[in-house]
Amino acid sequence: MNYDSLLKIAYQEALTGFEEGGVPVGAALFDADGNLLGRGRNRRVQDNDPSVHGETDAFRKAGRQTNYRDKILVTTLAPCWYCSGLIRQFNIGTVVVGESENFAGHLDWLREAGVTVVEMDDERCKALMRRFIAESPHIWFEDIGECRHG
Amino acid sequence: MNYDSLLKIAYQEALTGFEEGGVPVGAALFDADGNLLGRGRNRRVQDNDPSVHGETDAFRKAGRQTNYRDKILVTTLAPCWYCSGLIRQFNIGTVVVGESENFAGHLDWLREAGVTVVEMDDERCKALMRRFIAESPHIWFEDIGECRHG
Repeated sequence: MNYDSLLKIAYQEALTGFEEGGVPVGAALFDADGNLLGRGRNRRVQDNDPSVHGETDAFRKAGRQTNYRDKILVTTLAPCWYCSGLIRQFNIGTVVVGESENFAGHLDWLREAGVTVVEMDDERCKALMRRFIAESPHIWFEDIGECRHG
Repeated sequence: MNYDSLLKIAYQEALTGFEEGGVPVGAALFDADGNLLGRGRNRRVQDNDPSVHGETDAFRKAGRQTNYRDKILVTTLAPCWYCSGLIRQFNIGTVVVGESENFAGHLDWLREAGVTVVEMDDERCKALMRRFIAESPHIWFEDIGECRHG
């Protein structure tokens, strides 16, 4: 499987989110053959909706699936607990992570649950997220539940 | 805090979901004084959307909050990994659980993360869920990612 080409779709979503002024995390769900099932992005800012992370949006867009063990979830950034819980509950077999430098996530927890985790260490993903966190730290910390001023 | 009166709102949501033919799990988010911020229900069937669990719907309906430590999430059924991850990521301080007999959830994992978990052992919640699982086992197992026939 060419994970780079799958990651490009998630990155496009993240970039669109950035251009909209939103949190630039994108994701996409694929079947075992690499066919796209759903793609999405964080829309906390755009829709004023804290429940839409990139991963949950891609999962939603893919509609109801009877089995996720052979599916591939690609995300530009390591999943937070919310999205890690989604992956574990629905037994998504493979998770491709664009980068885990700006947010480490809980990749070992996923591995322990039997998820195949592929780390891409992608420079474009890192640069986009780094820029967003530098420019909009308040939105970022709100998005990961670390807002301390409310 | 009168948790029974808060649970009633979540139960009403679950009952509405049941009457719609959906998975009867309801939830509501309250502030520290018991004021309702958002209420919702599982809408996998109604909206054909696997991302909407009762807890995520209530969370969404409450809109963007800057802090969840003093908030109370009430749900008719013990939260799955997906919703447990939501609670942990956003540091929701208190979770009131209608019942954990039909689905045990991961209440110890939440407690270990510092969440106050209140178990209500509510007979009406148990009876509604038991009836749904008996009548629609395929939808239920799909909803918790345990569908084995796809």
